[in-house]
Amino acid sequence: MAKGGSDRPVRVGVLGAGNVGAALVSLLLEDAAGIAARTGVRLELAAVAVGNPAKPRTGIPAELVTGDAKRLVEDPGVDVVVELVGGLEPAGTLVRSALAAGKAVVTANKELLAAEGAVLSALAADAGVDLLYEAAVAGAIPIIRPLRESLAGERVRRVMGIVNGTTNFILTRMSESHMAYADALAEAQRLGFAERDPSADVDGHDAAAKAAILASIAFRCDVHTDDVPREGITSVSPVDIAFAAQLGYTVKLLAVAERLDPPGTTARADAPPEVSVRVHPAMLPNTHPLAAVRGAFNAVFVEGAAAGELMLYGRGAGGLPTASAVLGDVVDAAHHLQAGAPARTPMRSSAHMHPADDLRCAWYLNIDVVDRPGVLAAVATVFGQHGVSIRSMEQLGMGDEARLVFLTHVARQGDVMATLDGLRKLDVVEHVGGVLRVLGDEEDR
Amino acid sequence: MAKGGSDRPVRVGVLGAGNVGAALVSLLLEDAAGIAARTGVRLELAAVAVGNPAKPRTGIPAELVTGDAKRLVEDPGVDVVVELVGGLEPAGTLVRSALAAGKAVVTANKELLAAEGAVLSALAADAGVDLLYEAAVAGAIPIIRPLRESLAGERVRRVMGIVNGTTNFILTRMSESHMAYADALAEAQRLGFAERDPSADVDGHDAAAKAAILASIAFRCDVHTDDVPREGITSVSPVDIAFAAQLGYTVKLLAVAERLDPPGTTARADAPPEVSVRVHPAMLPNTHPLAAVRGAFNAVFVEGAAAGELMLYGRGAGGLPTASAVLGDVVDAAHHLQAGAPARTPMRSSAHMHPADDLRCAWYLNIDVVDRPGVLAAVATVFGQHGVSIRSMEQLGMGDEARLVFLTHVARQGDVMATLDGLRKLDVVEHVGGVLRVLGDEEDR
Repeated sequence: MAKGGSDRPVRVGVLGAGNVGAALVSLLLEDAAGIAARTGVRLELAAVAVGNPAKPRTGIPAELVTGDAKRLVEDPGVDVVVELVGGLEPAGTLVRSALAAGKAVVTANKELLAAEGAVLSALAADAGVDLLYEAAVAGAIPIIRPLRESLAGERVRRVMGIVNGTTNFILTRMSESHMAYADALAEAQRLGFAERDPSADVDGHDAAAKAAILASIAFRCDVHTDDVPREGITSVSPVDIAFAAQLGYTVKLLAVAERLDPPGTTARADAPPEVSVRVHPAMLPNTHPLAAVRGAFNAVFVEGAAAGELMLYGRGAGGLPTASAVLGDVVDAAHHLQAGAPARTPMRSSAHMHPADDLRCAWYLNIDVVDRPGVLAAVATVFGQHGVSIRSMEQLGMGDEARLVFLTHVARQGDVMATLDGLRKLDVVEHVGGVLRVLGDEEDR
Repeated sequence: MAKGGSDRPVRVGVLGAGNVGAALVSLLLEDAAGIAARTGVRLELAAVAVGNPAKPRTGIPAELVTGDAKRLVEDPGVDVVVELVGGLEPAGTLVRSALAAGKAVVTANKELLAAEGAVLSALAADAGVDLLYEAAVAGAIPIIRPLRESLAGERVRRVMGIVNGTTNFILTRMSESHMAYADALAEAQRLGFAERDPSADVDGHDAAAKAAILASIAFRCDVHTDDVPREGITSVSPVDIAFAAQLGYTVKLLAVAERLDPPGTTARADAPPEVSVRVHPAMLPNTHPLAAVRGAFNAVFVEGAAAGELMLYGRGAGGLPTASAVLGDVVDAAHHLQAGAPARTPMRSSAHMHPADDLRCAWYLNIDVVDRPGVLAAVATVFGQHGVSIRSMEQLGMGDEARLVFLTHVARQGDVMATLDGLRKLDVVEHVGGVLRVLGDEEDR
């Protein structure tokens, strides 16, 4: 390894030459002198491992291309391994091998980190090497490092992120151009923002992996992607988006990571944190900074005890923006290697997952009822039976589209679910339409 | 110093116990166990130096209070010195002494950094210790570390910041409540957002110091506060704010740091950067993320060659938010000390300041003319003589308030100034009113 301020450049091996890999290679090859001038570290591209080394690739010198990823991660001439293969395997085996070989690893692989982050972090800590993954959440936006370092002393209360550009694009189109979900999805697919099989995005899998990573960093605990309940955007209707707009709200798909220690536990500051990590659509007031995040952009909103409200905004995807975040990590790892400094491996504890039924927030409920006297009384009685307090009720829409739209005060999720069950049993309720959490409101900040 | 993973806590000496100092002390005393659990570093408050040690202070144990700041910065039992005194002296002498004594220094002192940043950075580099100042720009918002580390590999093109909460509060009130400048200022003073003598804020001095620091970090070069031309907000009129709104723009006071290398110099990546650093009000399109930053909030917008557009948003002032940023730096310095790692002292080169006349952007000009035929032709001729191309012209306002309002295409600043001189000489021009730069528009992104 290039330790102790040696004059040898830090040698970088790249696994994968897709969008991000190709962009990273171009930055490393074309801007090497600029990077050295700006950062004081000389980086040298050692090799690029690809699935099919015979395929001609513009921008990557043929002598640097290899088909043998396994050999690359074990090559003593490689100091930093950048994993851009994606998915669980073979990426996981390659990353574990690289860490075991004492190499710093930079990865943008959210799926792998959300599934095996705890194991990989422990491997990196044992080897005393860096495992960095700024690019795994929200692309070019600096979020992992600010959470890990700038806010190191901060008691973070909640992180809410718009971390999936595809769904934010679709919701923005539905909201601003009154498009139906299917039409907005088709447009996203046409523009290359959505895959042909969009389920990783629209069902919230991608956001759930990022939520797990954000929670791990914000609360320094192990959160696995399986710990993250998710609701996607396929059931968000244009009607609810329009009603939300009339009430002054915007619908966004949010990755939420929240610390909810039971009262009285603040004295035990070293107790494992109790957290809730989840993905669901939510209504945000239009004045909330996240409400203004449009199209394919990403943003992460952090609420801290001392820092107050912070938001980090930018491009969450794309070859060059993601490669920029990867490059920042590579420079960081190279700095550590040159300085001979041990990597800063974050503390991690196990997490206690807060029961979903005990979560508290306000809710939007859109209920289709029979139009006759006494209906509101019957409906309100069900709310009251379950201790859910109504903040406002309006009849919105016209004719057959007319609905009773309720906003509740902050209520227990379990009580709201019981209320919905009760409402569905009422003769006068024809249909419970949209059900959305309301976050970022006055009661919630 | 607490090196090499010793079990001894890292001892922190604090200079100054004002708003930020008191908040930092309370975090250090009340959340020490939490900080240790979250970060793995044990911090211990060693001493707090104040001007008047006899004054009783709630929240600071009397035995930790000292009147001898000089002794504190030289005390071998202090590992990290936090300078929260502010101003040039004695803060500068204390910081230099602490660095010379081999202590890491954390400061929130923008004035000192903007005046002596180059000297202090060199001292820190010589001593191999950290000089960290996340809190000096935009309070709690992580901006220095993201620029220095996350974007280390990035070629930053421009940084635009709303970095002064007082002026943003005043402009927000003028814009949203149609208040006059004096009334908005009086309200800001009543609410404690503005000093009784507001000139440090409204004349742009505070923003200029922060612009110098942002430029130093973004472009790794020495920018002194005297290098930063500034225009404040005292000449921004409610009429121009209203006209801007009609045209779809918001007026903000911006700190701008821009890299403007002459064409053809990209090959010489190690040449000193040519930069423009300045503070002035500007019109931003309402769709620009900075336009949505309201009230006393701050935000910094970064445009990078690979990363694209990023924005970091949050509270720019206040005791606790600023103390949170200071604490993040203290934890960082403590990590370096515990690991026995040399500090990462950023590269710096000298900067070449780009001539202001050669800056290029679009402009808003509000011109009061005599209402008679041929006037527009006369006015347009002057624009043409100086090579300034008109994008749009509208007569805005009513009656005596009616004005010709021009938006130009991107033009050289020197040409726009010459146009204004020419217009002032025309008989038909009674008065040149508001003159504002237009940034963040399509032509400019």
